[in-house]
Order: sequence, then structure tokens, then C-alpha cells
Amino acid sequence: MQDFLFSRMKRSAEIFGYEPYDGPLLEDIELYRAKSGEELVVEQVYCFVDRGGREMAIRPEMTPTLARMLARRHRELPKPIRFYSIPNLLRYERPQRGRLREHWQFNCDIFGAPEVASIVEILELLVHFLSGFGANKDHFQIWVNDRRMTDRLFHRIAPTKVRELYAIADRSSKENPGKTGERIHQLKLGNEGERLMENYLYDFKAWDSSPALGELFSAVEGLPCGEYLHYRPSIVRGMDYYTGLVFEVFDRHPQHKRALCGGGTYANLLECFNEGPLPGTGFGLGDVTLTDFLFVHELVDLDSVTRGNAHVLLACEAEEQGRAVLSLAAEIRKQNTRVITIPTPCQFKKALNFAEKAGVRTIGFLGKKEAREKTITLTHRDSGEKTSLPLGDVGKIRALVEGRK
Amino acid sequence: MQDFLFSRMKRSAEIFGYEPYDGPLLEDIELYRAKSGEELVVEQVYCFVDRGGREMAIRPEMTPTLARMLARRHRELPKPIRFYSIPNLLRYERPQRGRLREHWQFNCDIFGAPEVASIVEILELLVHFLSGFGANKDHFQIWVNDRRMTDRLFHRIAPTKVRELYAIADRSSKENPGKTGERIHQLKLGNEGERLMENYLYDFKAWDSSPALGELFSAVEGLPCGEYLHYRPSIVRGMDYYTGLVFEVFDRHPQHKRALCGGGTYANLLECFNEGPLPGTGFGLGDVTLTDFLFVHELVDLDSVTRGNAHVLLACEAEEQGRAVLSLAAEIRKQNTRVITIPTPCQFKKALNFAEKAGVRTIGFLGKKEAREKTITLTHRDSGEKTSLPLGDVGKIRALVEGRK
Repeated sequence: MQDFLFSRMKRSAEIFGYEPYDGPLLEDIELYRAKSGEELVVEQVYCFVDRGGREMAIRPEMTPTLARMLARRHRELPKPIRFYSIPNLLRYERPQRGRLREHWQFNCDIFGAPEVASIVEILELLVHFLSGFGANKDHFQIWVNDRRMTDRLFHRIAPTKVRELYAIADRSSKENPGKTGERIHQLKLGNEGERLMENYLYDFKAWDSSPALGELFSAVEGLPCGEYLHYRPSIVRGMDYYTGLVFEVFDRHPQHKRALCGGGTYANLLECFNEGPLPGTGFGLGDVTLTDFLFVHELVDLDSVTRGNAHVLLACEAEEQGRAVLSLAAEIRKQNTRVITIPTPCQFKKALNFAEKAGVRTIGFLGKKEAREKTITLTHRDSGEKTSLPLGDVGKIRALVEGRK
Repeated sequence: MQDFLFSRMKRSAEIFGYEPYDGPLLEDIELYRAKSGEELVVEQVYCFVDRGGREMAIRPEMTPTLARMLARRHRELPKPIRFYSIPNLLRYERPQRGRLREHWQFNCDIFGAPEVASIVEILELLVHFLSGFGANKDHFQIWVNDRRMTDRLFHRIAPTKVRELYAIADRSSKENPGKTGERIHQLKLGNEGERLMENYLYDFKAWDSSPALGELFSAVEGLPCGEYLHYRPSIVRGMDYYTGLVFEVFDRHPQHKRALCGGGTYANLLECFNEGPLPGTGFGLGDVTLTDFLFVHELVDLDSVTRGNAHVLLACEAEEQGRAVLSLAAEIRKQNTRVITIPTPCQFKKALNFAEKAGVRTIGFLGKKEAREKTITLTHRDSGEKTSLPLGDVGKIRALVEGRK
């Protein structure tokens, strides 16, 4: 299953011209302190002091690693720069459905292109990827917002409580308005502040006060990603490094409403490496939530996904034929035909049983009779049809196996 | 490059009927203490106490994880059981050429089959894998030994110094006999002990005192792995869990003599899970040493390995054509053609420059003239040949791009 998902991720990234990169599993913890804030580091990162006295972290996300690498190389690369990766990541949190501590994440980022054009490309890539499984707008939506709009508003409401306002916005789509109203009230924002916050959270048309959102909605008209795009005031992507447009891909299944993937634009990612601004846009999409999404919408057929079985099983009745079995296996494998052998002499019935369990269609058996005649009997598991071929005729044996696989 | 190596690993494993498995990056440290010995754990494993007070390790190898998984499942699986994996691993050691702290390792294991048959299959798989790159017996050899033979001899020489004798055997192939002689002398084994150890280390024909080695050399006659196999008394694979036949794939390059891969048979892997014996045989092959091996023998052509470039670059001269570029890109990508776009309006010359840097063969350009005529001009980068096609004729545009890629 993972192989299948990863190959689809690679395919979509490469169809959009993204290049693969990889980075170390362990990073200096400062890399995350600098950009993700103390909270994420203290609460969610696996960290430890190594024997050299350095505070190390097991990477909880890939973007800081990419930023570190780009800080060294970005000047020599033609813009826009496009990179993707599928790393394993670790977050130290209570495991819950769709959020395991360890997971793999599909990351794509584009650097050095205008903000709206970058977001459009990233969303097109995501829609290409998800549509590839047959997902459509009944299955998911893309929710967007503009961090500049929320930053401005939240600073206006209560400059000392911006973090708390972000947390409320983030939670508001997952609870009823009464509960959210309570949270707002507890913040003691005053009447005007409360009114502004409530108005903000439930006005789904306020996007027109963000020039970037206006430009985005116009740019996607007629494009595949256009029909998925909706403004949602609750989408803020935590206190991450995003500075502009942000988005989440949201699962529409009634029992499964949650984000599949999040991303956005960031202007200052290289700042902590003392590099000039290099605007970037990217997303991260986890394999666990993706798998849940595909299963709950029945978008994936496990049978067609799981690795193909071996094409032929070879077995022999007597010790003396063991070498002939192995030699034949080696010959057939040269042409990439998948062969499993039973490494001990056995009766045909045992070979047939094993072939059934292993899902192999053809059994090649070397019994005593075959040994005398220097032949092999190839049995089609389903029909029981038997074909005898000269043991030396590898071409014919292979052709028969391949024809049935 | 990594993609390329991994896909070759998967291919060889699957041609031999091995099934993929995966496991967690973090394991309880007891898993390694139990099987690998205190030394490996203390000196070579990244470990830390997590917030729940558990001693955790970042996996330094995959076999214990596989053993843990098999302890639960082996009874219900038809034998032989065949598994492979390509995990990232971490060892806490001074980085040196070919031995980075973090690396990826190709692991294959077979369980529940007779020892010699299992070793033969594992070696056949390795030879299939390495031959796939064009490697032959000028490039590598496979060195084998039998741990029962060394165990018996070393216990006879000095039952309290078996560990030291293993260390000497292990080092002896990497240093001159004088140095090894010194080490042996320092152990104060007495004349008889010294003589036995020296005789053992330099007698390359002593394999006939191991029944398993005798059986192995006879079994591989005429098989592809046969011409690679040599007995070497120094191959002992440390104090690992191996209990029977052990081997190393050894690089023959004069400047590069070292093991590419090691493995062997183990009888008691499930013992610490209170399970009965399930004999297994397997190997681990690291991506870093493999890459070095392929480069030093010029067995890999980087140009043919690196990810294919995009097939077409699309760009436009004026803002108004931006949407047409993106729509065309979306249409072409539906057929898996790789498209990159320049997200800002630009002159043809800039598009041509970018195509050169990105290695793209065809430039699709929408200038002002093309916009009036609703066409697109497709330029072949190498020849400069220009073809004008209707913007709406996606089929023809794609066919032209695909023909040149």
C-alpha cells in the first residue's frame, strides 16, 4: 500500500516538474526553535542530548530542513525552485486516529514565484494527485484564508491575545458556535472585540477584503482546482511560519470531517539563516490521513494495490532435483518473471497448497517421472490443466507462465 | 539516485517472491539489548528516555523489529516466510567513508526453510540484484564461514576469551598478519592456543571441517552465485545473533576493499519473545556502500539515473494569457506528460534560458501574436524548429511534446 501511495506522490510531483530531495532524520533542535516556536518544540518534538552534548531532534516536519538546504543553494538555482520529498517524521503526541506519532509526509514546495501563482500551482498539483484516485468535489474541498487578514484583525481586537485568538479560530470549525462563543467570552475582549471576532468567524464572504484571496479566486476560474476552493475564516494553520495565503484540504465524509493536508505561503523562511527573503509556498500531506481518506470513500481497491504475487512456484519431489529447480528459477528470473521455490523436496499436493496460500497461478513440478524424462509439468492452479515441457526449454516455460500471470 | 536503487531492490526482492514489511522508527531499547548485546546498544545506538520514562532507541537495524513482528504472526504464515524492507537506520558512530550515521538498508530474510537452501536463495537474490547493475566476479566476491566451526574452535582455545578471538578474526582480513600475530600474542593463549588460532586464520581450505559449508559449496555448483563463493576464516559477523553460516559480499576494487553487505543464518531470533525456534537467514545491504561500489566500478550512469526532466515548458508574454497556460498545462498533465510553467509573464528568451537550465526539450510559448490567433508556438530547444498549433488542439500539442522528449 505504501509503495503504491509513494509512487503516486512521485508521479504527481514529477508531472509538475518538482525535483526530489532528502535530508537527515536528526537535526539540531535550534532549527525548529527558530521557526516553529518554543511550544511546538517543547511539546511535540522528540528530542534528546547526544553524547557530544548537542540537543538533537528527530525531525517533526521537513520544511525547516529544506530551508536550511536552500539557504546554502538558492542563489545558484534558477527560479522558480520546485522540490518534493516523502520523509518519515515523528511528533511526540498522544496517538489518535489519523495522527500517529510516526508518519510519512508528502511535501511539495515552490520558491521564488509570485504568491498567487505559487498557490495555484500547489493546489493544481494536489488536485491532480487526489483526482488520480478518483476523488472529486463530493470527497474533498480546499479551504483557504489569508494570514495577513487575520493578523491585522486579531491585532486590532487584542494585540496581547493574538495567539489565543488564533487558537480559537483554529478550533471553531470543529465545535459548535456556542462553545466557541464561550471561549471568546473568557478572553475578556470587551463588547467590540467579541463582536468583531464573532463576525469574523461566521462571515464566509469576507474574503473580498483580502486582495490576495480576490486574486486567487479569479485565477482559479476554469482550472481543475477551481471547483474545490472555498474561503473559510477558521483556516489559520496554527502559529506556523505561514505569512500569507494558507489552505487545508478537507475531507467531506460525514464521519470523517478533518484536514487531509495543510499548506500555505511563507515569506521569511530563510530569515534565521541570515538570508534575504525567498518567498515559498508548500504543503504537507500525511500517509495515514490519506489512507483513511481513500478507504472511507472506497477510492482504493486493496486487491489491485497489494504487491503482485509470484508468477510461478517451482518445487521438486526428490533432493536430487533441487539443483535443477534452482537453475531453472535463475534462468526464468533473468527475464523478471517472479519465481518462488519450495526449498525442500515435497509432494505435488503440498506445492499446490502453498501456491494457493501464496496466490501463485502456475506450479512447476519436477517429480520422479519428470526427472527421468528431463521435463517439467506446469499446472494451472485454477483449471488444473497440465502441460509438460522439456526442462531445458526456458523460453517456452517462461512464455507459458507469463501468459497465465 | 536513491529512487533508482530502491526500485532495483524492490524488483529483485519481488522476483524472488519476498513481501514488503515496515516497522516503527523508535523501539524499546530492550529489543536490542536482548539480541545484540550490551556493547552495541551502549556504544552504537541512539537512545534516550522519553517523557513516559521509557528508554527508547532509534532503530540501528531492522532484524529485531522483524523478529518482534514475526513472534506474533509466524504461526499463521505458510513456510517458508519471505520478507524484505528498505528502512532508514541510525548508528551512533564516527561517520567515515561508506558508513554514515544515517543510512538506508535493503533487508531480506527467509524463515522456516533448511539452512543451506536458505543461504543459497539469499545469495542468489544478492547476485541477481548486483548483476542487475552489470557487476560480475571481477567486482565482488562472496565470503562465507560457519559460526559453529569458529564457536567450537574458539571455545577450545580459550573459553573465557571467545569475544576477543572473534574480534581478532574480524580484524585479521583488514591488517597484515604481523599485526594480527601481535594481537593474538597479547591474549596470552599459550603456544598451543596461538598455533591453533594462527592456523585457523590462514588456512583457506579448512571449510571441509564444516558439514554445512561442504553442503553449501556443493549446492551452488552451476548456479549464478556459485562463481562468487569463497571460504574466508575471518568472516564472523561480530557478536551478532548469527548461529550458523555467515557471509559478506566483498568489494574487489583495489582502493575499496570492504564489505558491501553481510548476513547469515540465525536459529534463536524469537527466543527472547518466548517463542520456539524459527530458523532464519537474511542480509542487510546499505545504500551508501552500494552507491560507492557502483561509482568506483563505473557501474552506474548518473545521467540515465537522475529523474527525468519535464517534457515541456509553458510560458506566456502577457498576464492575460496566464490562465490559458495553466489550463493547457492541466490538460496535458492528464496524460502524464510532465509540464513546468513559468508563473510570471516573460519574453521568449527568458523561457528558452529556463528550459536550458532545467533540461526541457520543448518550449510552448504564448506571445501576443499567438494570443490573437489562439495558437501556441512550440519550439524545439536543440534545433530551434518552431511549430504553430491551435491552442485548443491538446492532442496534437501533447503528441509533438511526447515525440521529442
